[in-house]
Amino acid sequence: MHKSRESNIYGRIKLYAGQGNPSLAEKIAEYLGQKLSGRKITEFPNENLLIQLDDSARGQDVFVIQSTGRPVHRNIMELLIMLQTLRLDSAGRITAVVPYLTYARSDKKDQPRVPITARLIADMIEIAGADRYMTLDLHAGQIQGFFSIPGDVLTAFHIITDYIETIVSDMKDPVIVSADLGFAKKGRNFANDLGLPLALIEKRRSKSGSKTEALNLVGKVDGCDVILVDDEIDTAGSVSQAVGLLKKKGAQEITLTCVHPVFSYPAAERLANLPIKEIVCTDTLPISDEDLHLLKDKLTVLSIAPLLGEVILRAHEGRSVGEMFNE
Amino acid sequence: MHKSRESNIYGRIKLYAGQGNPSLAEKIAEYLGQKLSGRKITEFPNENLLIQLDDSARGQDVFVIQSTGRPVHRNIMELLIMLQTLRLDSAGRITAVVPYLTYARSDKKDQPRVPITARLIADMIEIAGADRYMTLDLHAGQIQGFFSIPGDVLTAFHIITDYIETIVSDMKDPVIVSADLGFAKKGRNFANDLGLPLALIEKRRSKSGSKTEALNLVGKVDGCDVILVDDEIDTAGSVSQAVGLLKKKGAQEITLTCVHPVFSYPAAERLANLPIKEIVCTDTLPISDEDLHLLKDKLTVLSIAPLLGEVILRAHEGRSVGEMFNE
Amino acid sequence: MHKSRESNIYGRIKLYAGQGNPSLAEKIAEYLGQKLSGRKITEFPNENLLIQLDDSARGQDVFVIQSTGRPVHRNIMELLIMLQTLRLDSAGRITAVVPYLTYARSDKKDQPRVPITARLIADMIEIAGADRYMTLDLHAGQIQGFFSIPGDVLTAFHIITDYIETIVSDMKDPVIVSADLGFAKKGRNFANDLGLPLALIEKRRSKSGSKTEALNLVGKVDGCDVILVDDEIDTAGSVSQAVGLLKKKGAQEITLTCVHPVFSYPAAERLANLPIKEIVCTDTLPISDEDLHLLKDKLTVLSIAPLLGEVILRAHEGRSVGEMFNE
Amino acid sequence: MHKSRESNIYGRIKLYAGQGNPSLAEKIAEYLGQKLSGRKITEFPNENLLIQLDDSARGQDVFVIQSTGRPVHRNIMELLIMLQTLRLDSAGRITAVVPYLTYARSDKKDQPRVPITARLIADMIEIAGADRYMTLDLHAGQIQGFFSIPGDVLTAFHIITDYIETIVSDMKDPVIVSADLGFAKKGRNFANDLGLPLALIEKRRSKSGSKTEALNLVGKVDGCDVILVDDEIDTAGSVSQAVGLLKKKGAQEITLTCVHPVFSYPAAERLANLPIKEIVCTDTLPISDEDLHLLKDKLTVLSIAPLLGEVILRAHEGRSVGEMFNE
Amino acid sequence: MHKSRESNIYGRIKLYAGQGNPSLAEKIAEYLGQKLSGRKITEFPNENLLIQLDDSARGQDVFVIQSTGRPVHRNIMELLIMLQTLRLDSAGRITAVVPYLTYARSDKKDQPRVPITARLIADMIEIAGADRYMTLDLHAGQIQGFFSIPGDVLTAFHIITDYIETIVSDMKDPVIVSADLGFAKKGRNFANDLGLPLALIEKRRSKSGSKTEALNLVGKVDGCDVILVDDEIDTAGSVSQAVGLLKKKGAQEITLTCVHPVFSYPAAERLANLPIKEIVCTDTLPISDEDLHLLKDKLTVLSIAPLLGEVILRAHEGRSVGEMFNE
Amino acid sequence: MHKSRESNIYGRIKLYAGQGNPSLAEKIAEYLGQKLSGRKITEFPNENLLIQLDDSARGQDVFVIQSTGRPVHRNIMELLIMLQTLRLDSAGRITAVVPYLTYARSDKKDQPRVPITARLIADMIEIAGADRYMTLDLHAGQIQGFFSIPGDVLTAFHIITDYIETIVSDMKDPVIVSADLGFAKKGRNFANDLGLPLALIEKRRSKSGSKTEALNLVGKVDGCDVILVDDEIDTAGSVSQAVGLLKKKGAQEITLTCVHPVFSYPAAERLANLPIKEIVCTDTLPISDEDLHLLKDKLTVLSIAPLLGEVILRAHEGRSVGEMFNE
Repeated sequence: MHKSRESNIYGRIKLYAGQGNPSLAEKIAEYLGQKLSGRKITEFPNENLLIQLDDSARGQDVFVIQSTGRPVHRNIMELLIMLQTLRLDSAGRITAVVPYLTYARSDKKDQPRVPITARLIADMIEIAGADRYMTLDLHAGQIQGFFSIPGDVLTAFHIITDYIETIVSDMKDPVIVSADLGFAKKGRNFANDLGLPLALIEKRRSKSGSKTEALNLVGKVDGCDVILVDDEIDTAGSVSQAVGLLKKKGAQEITLTCVHPVFSYPAAERLANLPIKEIVCTDTLPISDEDLHLLKDKLTVLSIAPLLGEVILRAHEGRSVGEMFNE
Repeated sequence: MHKSRESNIYGRIKLYAGQGNPSLAEKIAEYLGQKLSGRKITEFPNENLLIQLDDSARGQDVFVIQSTGRPVHRNIMELLIMLQTLRLDSAGRITAVVPYLTYARSDKKDQPRVPITARLIADMIEIAGADRYMTLDLHAGQIQGFFSIPGDVLTAFHIITDYIETIVSDMKDPVIVSADLGFAKKGRNFANDLGLPLALIEKRRSKSGSKTEALNLVGKVDGCDVILVDDEIDTAGSVSQAVGLLKKKGAQEITLTCVHPVFSYPAAERLANLPIKEIVCTDTLPISDEDLHLLKDKLTVLSIAPLLGEVILRAHEGRSVGEMFNE
Repeated sequence: MHKSRESNIYGRIKLYAGQGNPSLAEKIAEYLGQKLSGRKITEFPNENLLIQLDDSARGQDVFVIQSTGRPVHRNIMELLIMLQTLRLDSAGRITAVVPYLTYARSDKKDQPRVPITARLIADMIEIAGADRYMTLDLHAGQIQGFFSIPGDVLTAFHIITDYIETIVSDMKDPVIVSADLGFAKKGRNFANDLGLPLALIEKRRSKSGSKTEALNLVGKVDGCDVILVDDEIDTAGSVSQAVGLLKKKGAQEITLTCVHPVFSYPAAERLANLPIKEIVCTDTLPISDEDLHLLKDKLTVLSIAPLLGEVILRAHEGRSVGEMFNE
Repeated sequence: MHKSRESNIYGRIKLYAGQGNPSLAEKIAEYLGQKLSGRKITEFPNENLLIQLDDSARGQDVFVIQSTGRPVHRNIMELLIMLQTLRLDSAGRITAVVPYLTYARSDKKDQPRVPITARLIADMIEIAGADRYMTLDLHAGQIQGFFSIPGDVLTAFHIITDYIETIVSDMKDPVIVSADLGFAKKGRNFANDLGLPLALIEKRRSKSGSKTEALNLVGKVDGCDVILVDDEIDTAGSVSQAVGLLKKKGAQEITLTCVHPVFSYPAAERLANLPIKEIVCTDTLPISDEDLHLLKDKLTVLSIAPLLGEVILRAHEGRSVGEMFNE
Repeated sequence: MHKSRESNIYGRIKLYAGQGNPSLAEKIAEYLGQKLSGRKITEFPNENLLIQLDDSARGQDVFVIQSTGRPVHRNIMELLIMLQTLRLDSAGRITAVVPYLTYARSDKKDQPRVPITARLIADMIEIAGADRYMTLDLHAGQIQGFFSIPGDVLTAFHIITDYIETIVSDMKDPVIVSADLGFAKKGRNFANDLGLPLALIEKRRSKSGSKTEALNLVGKVDGCDVILVDDEIDTAGSVSQAVGLLKKKGAQEITLTCVHPVFSYPAAERLANLPIKEIVCTDTLPISDEDLHLLKDKLTVLSIAPLLGEVILRAHEGRSVGEMFNE
Repeated sequence: MHKSRESNIYGRIKLYAGQGNPSLAEKIAEYLGQKLSGRKITEFPNENLLIQLDDSARGQDVFVIQSTGRPVHRNIMELLIMLQTLRLDSAGRITAVVPYLTYARSDKKDQPRVPITARLIADMIEIAGADRYMTLDLHAGQIQGFFSIPGDVLTAFHIITDYIETIVSDMKDPVIVSADLGFAKKGRNFANDLGLPLALIEKRRSKSGSKTEALNLVGKVDGCDVILVDDEIDTAGSVSQAVGLLKKKGAQEITLTCVHPVFSYPAAERLANLPIKEIVCTDTLPISDEDLHLLKDKLTVLSIAPLLGEVILRAHEGRSVGEMFNE
């Protein structure tokens, strides 16, 4: 735990939290040795939100912590309204801390006549008043380029690989399997860092145009313990298929890791029923008590609060973030 | 009904509708003698929306009809995503048609450290890609100034006063009562146009600072039939109090009119139980079947579809809107 | 009087004044215990203005005090040129302090094909280089939303009600009368705060379309002393009519209050001749010696300099403004 | 005279005029064979302007003709308000036609801590809503780069040289004299085009730092008829000095030409009393009847209305303007 | 070949070409049945470029065709200057057609303290004046989101797979190999479309931190003919290593395909010496005569001119581009 | 030499240099008593540049020193990429220090259908991330108005006149000659400051339209020593002609001064062969060893490093720059 810092060129650190991930916000505040600043969020019967700050943020270095999981659209608006409120209150510098950035999969027009909603979200965050942003493990690193404000795009990669190193010694012929071709490069990074071989799962539309997809495995897992890696688990549908394929191809024990536990229905049930030994994720999103109960024996949640807390501190003090990772 | 128009300087009219008020959109399309353009709205398990247009809107004069009632935040995002999709598809001109603009009551900082969410909504509509906007009876006319794009801010005033003129002859000593001091000037316009006297209801915080409010009536209603006017009915709480006061002050039959039937819970129940003869509103927002059932004997819904249809047509053809009202 | 402050995160306070209200600017400077910074304003024979700062404002926390009364357009340009000069001189932060914001009544399109000049003024202030603005008692609070920069919109309400409390004890059955329906809510605030009843004056166009207007009184003043409240007095034409009506309705002594003494010709003459006991206003605008002479027996001018001075200080030091008002 | 044109891709031409140069606007309208569109300009007692268009400009190709001579600031605001009104009325394309752009001499920081007001004016014209601009003979051609919108910067050079060619044959050893070193290059163009020699007048501050200036002549005028050229005549102070010097250096008959007859007091008197044969200027600015009377024997005013009319027509029809000058 | 089109809502098509890929520009013009519009590009001794259009582009629908290969920075500036020239000349609509967008690999901060130059390029294209853009096979689809203007991001995928289908029947056990994990998903699309198996080449940094990389093959190629796919070939270094690995793993004949023949030194030499049967690419970039000579037996260049020509036509006429691909 | 300063409101001074003028950057750093911050500039075989900062610039007061001489376009891109890298790294304030701003001669549309590239360059510098800029002796002072960010436009005038004063006493009847009419006013400033007479060289197109130009001398140089002044020397073509004319007109010894030694081929050869005694310039641009060798006997290079260093210091500390020049 760190001592609360004195005022500096950007004023003092003030932390505000939306309702998107309150327990993470509390842990970040704890890391920084201070309390979350008070704000009252009222939802009127017509669903409109009103946010009022308990005290003034004039000239302070403000960080708004808001994850954008379910309820997605309400959480987005809560973030934006909080940003605007702070801007209109003449805050000194405003950083939107969004551990999980929703709509990140809508990041390109891969079909005609569709939106790039991630760009829209970036534009909205800017226009609401953020001077900077922080987030973790974007679906595609390029989303950084959707913002014209500076940001810190962090990764839980080190936190996860540190944890895997503590369990990999008990594994038999471990192999990293990337659950999706879009995650191939990041899967390679896991394999590279841990010194393990890599295999990939390839999804194909059937040629007839029907919606059924076929999965192939590129690489070998026969007789190996598998660490299946992806950036997020949504409904766990793909994961279920992947685990089935891996088992068919002779995989032994399977460990599943992801950064963002989106866990849309019926993810928890599916995961509970899959023949996997452990699920490793972080707390970028809150996990419901119900889901925690369903997955209790399998689930390991690694906290990113110290990472975000430290980066907030360095951003505030004008110190390098890169050097945290020897970069 | 009007014939579908030929292409002109802004291309052809194309109408798109979100899910905020589909039946109004249908009626507008009908007025214009054309069909709503197809779009597929998918909600994924993680609540993210995907919108895909059925065919191209390149170079066309596009109108996106979306009311922003419940679910408020989802409807806002639907509107914004639709606007961006059309912009990225190189639509010729894009008009956001928002019959009811939510968050319009958050239009100024009347307390310290609160947002001006209506300005945020305006900014979001612009940044998403709207070239113009249309809306009806804003809570405050000044909200027009929150937009930097041009817009047509219409009013259902003429539609409502035309209707009242058909029923006022059966009333006894009719008097217009403005339900809120913020609606005083518009209440006066009703009174002026219909040649009736005006009274006003004044709400006061009790001096002790407690949250209870006292209502006063300024003006006279004793022995009169009352037409109680406001811009929207939300939970009908104020209306209930107002009706109570009016009855205590000797009002006879009470007719209630508003433009926007927001009808947040428990509006319909309250209205059903109030001693009012008739509730007159428009279809800027959809009314649930349940509410319609509760209010069936009392409710008169006037359609604004012909008004919006005609204005869309004139905006498309570069003809004056003002001259519709002899202005 | 306060001591001059040391440099802080925004540099030191520097105060500049245009020619719009020099004596107010002097009083603010006096409150802050410092001198107005020197600038030379030259008007060339072709009416072009040249502003040159006496010394550099690089990196300082600059406040430009300029009221925008007569000559209105020259004062606007003076403000804008001063803002740009400071921006180009690399001032650290620039706040436009505009005690009276002209064109505020052009705040919506209440007729077709008219401007929203108040938005244009806001845009011009922003583009010229203001980072923030301060003003008092805007004609409509929503004008805050015309700015995208943060601002402090203050009110002389407390200053005026404090003064009225010192004179109300001598009044007989005092009643607050709002001079205009657009001021109804603010009139209610006066009534609420002072614990007095409220009446309202309602203006109507005659139905025939002629330009003559009829005034009605809603509420009761018979036998009462009246405090007639409005936000500004322009030509005093409406006030004259209102006073006439109040007298006809039996009002006793009449006290008139407003924030902004615009006093366009022939306001002073009219006011001098009206049967009113006292006129209470503030010094957001200068009052000519001639007008002061005409109104000398009746006029009470309350200074807003300490209010603006204190808010400038708090804005500079990053302290809450709201807490000045126990908010 | 040209026939009124049909609607094209930018709608139809609509011409609006402010009060800055009404007779020029009339002549342009005449050239285009159409009437100025109606607008009502009201000045309230508080000096605020209200502009209302007589009919709708929706989707039309609008040209706002406003010169920005005296009263300078009022004329600027009139222009800006007119532009915003048209933008909010959804005009198709808006061109600000400003034959004389005021503040053009404030085009650089040639001293520290001064504004670049010409850039501010350009920004204001853009933010008010102009899509394009037109002007004549800017004080410095670089001012084009202050605008980010496209524009047509025209010159009356051809009109003036055509006229001079009609009178030069009667002159004796004619020589072009540039009245100011800042006009040296344009003076050379006159000399080059007319095949005449060039001389220049050089102004120097006296070294002692006092404000008195000394004039030198660079080149020879002894025994020659002189055509003294400049871009504008303001108070005619420099011109008076120049004429004195020229006479001292042996110049014979002097003809004075400029584009913009700013004629600030006491220009007309000075010019009337100077030993010059003829003053040639254009009608970019109105000349008062009084000044016309004073100068009646000497003044030749060449109209730029056909030039502006033709360029408006070509801009509307998407035809080249350059080819008018064989460029 | 298509007939030249008539004027429409965006004026007439006008095609301009920079010097980045003149022969492609010629072919596009030919497809559209018209000539490239004339422009003179002058390079002064100080390397500054001057572009002058031969005739006016006022109100026309302009397409600027410029590929941004070597000399990269000069070609970028040529594009930007041309866009600005057209904007200042009041072109009706300007589309930047950039078949190969340089700097696209600088699309995210994958190390600390590096730029996202692709976003900078997008910003520069917008600020120079483009209303729309067209490009082919971006290194990452997300780069679309770097632009706030609409664009058509096309793909040569269909052109290349159509060609491969004509040669695949002669292959023995053909397999698609993705040359880079970042191309894994697009590699899968090739495999999927052609009904072939997929293998991938995985690059690893050696753990010791030295710069040497190790290549692994994921999947099988033993005894198979290989189609090695990538988006561009730069120095052909990776390709050389990949071919070496494939041969070691037992691959038979190798065909290499890419969209963009960047061919930086010493690509052509390397390719000429590699044991590959055929190199298939497109003409998004010009290939030097020298390189053509070196590769003459192996190189198949497929033209994208008809694709770009058709899309330009459809964009001009407001017709769907997606329907070209049955989308 | 000055001590390195402590952190202040803008963080600490950090100096970065591109490759446009490394020795000037070193000298500025030396003046400020600190080292240039490390950055690695990589040029890939495809000519793309990658810039990586050695350590973090978060919250610091950063100055990027980059002159934009040859290779012009690469130097521009280097500047822009460096600015963006610093912005994305959350630098506190970024000043682009561009001693020589290329493309400054493209500052107006003096022919139809040409660009204003200097405005484009200004826009690019702003969009890349500069908060401020510094430059010297712009070709036209108005270019300051092309930027909307503040800047310090310095002049080497004092440095050059100070030097000339040391040599003028040895001259016989010295006269200042402006090499170009566009430099007439600045030439007058030299003459005025040094108390010398002024003559001007006038260039004319021959009337027949052919490209040959004729030079005239306005004023007298017969028997005088001449100081020929201009802002930059490019190919030295005009200078050669001017020297020829001056000699023909009887000039004695000729000294040539300019600020910017652009020295495009074959400037050095021409200058070496001209009958001039001395060439005085500054180090805003590097001079190649080859050129230095050619001109060794004649060339005097005055360093602007102390000037830029002092202004950087004052800008950092929020002190006046004007007072350096008693302004």
